[in-house]
Amino acid sequence: MADDNWEILESRYLLREWWMAVREDAVKLPTGVVLSRFHVVEVPDWVCVVGITAEGKVVLVRQYRHGVGQTVLELPAGGIEDGEAVEDAARREFSEETGYDASEWIALGSLFQDPSRQTNTAYIYAATGLEPGRSNPDPTEQLTIELADASEVLNMIADGRLKHSTHVAAILLAAAHPDLAIHFSAAD
Amino acid sequence: MADDNWEILESRYLLREWWMAVREDAVKLPTGVVLSRFHVVEVPDWVCVVGITAEGKVVLVRQYRHGVGQTVLELPAGGIEDGEAVEDAARREFSEETGYDASEWIALGSLFQDPSRQTNTAYIYAATGLEPGRSNPDPTEQLTIELADASEVLNMIADGRLKHSTHVAAILLAAAHPDLAIHFSAAD
Repeated sequence: MADDNWEILESRYLLREWWMAVREDAVKLPTGVVLSRFHVVEVPDWVCVVGITAEGKVVLVRQYRHGVGQTVLELPAGGIEDGEAVEDAARREFSEETGYDASEWIALGSLFQDPSRQTNTAYIYAATGLEPGRSNPDPTEQLTIELADASEVLNMIADGRLKHSTHVAAILLAAAHPDLAIHFSAAD
Repeated sequence: MADDNWEILESRYLLREWWMAVREDAVKLPTGVVLSRFHVVEVPDWVCVVGITAEGKVVLVRQYRHGVGQTVLELPAGGIEDGEAVEDAARREFSEETGYDASEWIALGSLFQDPSRQTNTAYIYAATGLEPGRSNPDPTEQLTIELADASEVLNMIADGRLKHSTHVAAILLAAAHPDLAIHFSAAD
């Protein structure tokens, strides 16, 4: 579909840091239309983990998020470091944020967070066989770990307690996975 | 949870346009840690529509997305205009992009696209009772409408043909809705 691609005529950075860059492109569309200022946010690829305990509980993280200015409930997630393998990043972030190590990892696919404006891809994993480890959160991360029954997590999505698009998609992908669906069936 | 909130010490804009603003905040965390430069992308709230025809087909939109530099398959979606009611925006965007009008609208909730970095909320709707109208896409939008069986759309998510986090979450929310689930059951 290369014929659909926009041609970049000029490009400059308004911000260029390792955690975020903002690029201003002048682009030419296949129709010939020129957009003189189209802005793209370059952010690192990241991982997002649906961790499920032997008791069928999902490991959630509650933390303040400055974009929306609210404390929100999310999955453990974080950026992939330079040169780091994707699954290694998933294991590292999950362990650092939650204090759990996991023996079984299932790749559930990859998602674009905001393909029109952002460059990044999220890699989604499920983790089972959890063992207590030692959490080691980033000093800018003040987070609280919460465990919720997997079936209750589906209710949290339905009633808006879980609102992060990629995390909601990740949980619903896990719930639909043949090896994981059993955890999400309500016991009651 | 106001105690978790970061205090904004200073704030300035690196970019400030109606389609996107980039804010650089100096913030003080509840721990006393000061981050001198935290960047937030302010983008408008938006709507995203899972439109299902009487034949059980989901209305998809294929278009080039410059953030990821690829042509991707998505749901009809777009920004809410100033002063516009959320459901009106859903009806307008759906009609403009796809050429369908819909008689039945179901609100499926709201999602944050990137709560740590972005300010925006996505409002998710399902639409049924579709009638052909007249499409009127934005001149910067070169899009192709495709119809896919709702059950096949779940396969498209599983195998990565549909990758936009919010749209994947929206489809899975529709598939789990009691009034819509029947469309997503495979006939074969």
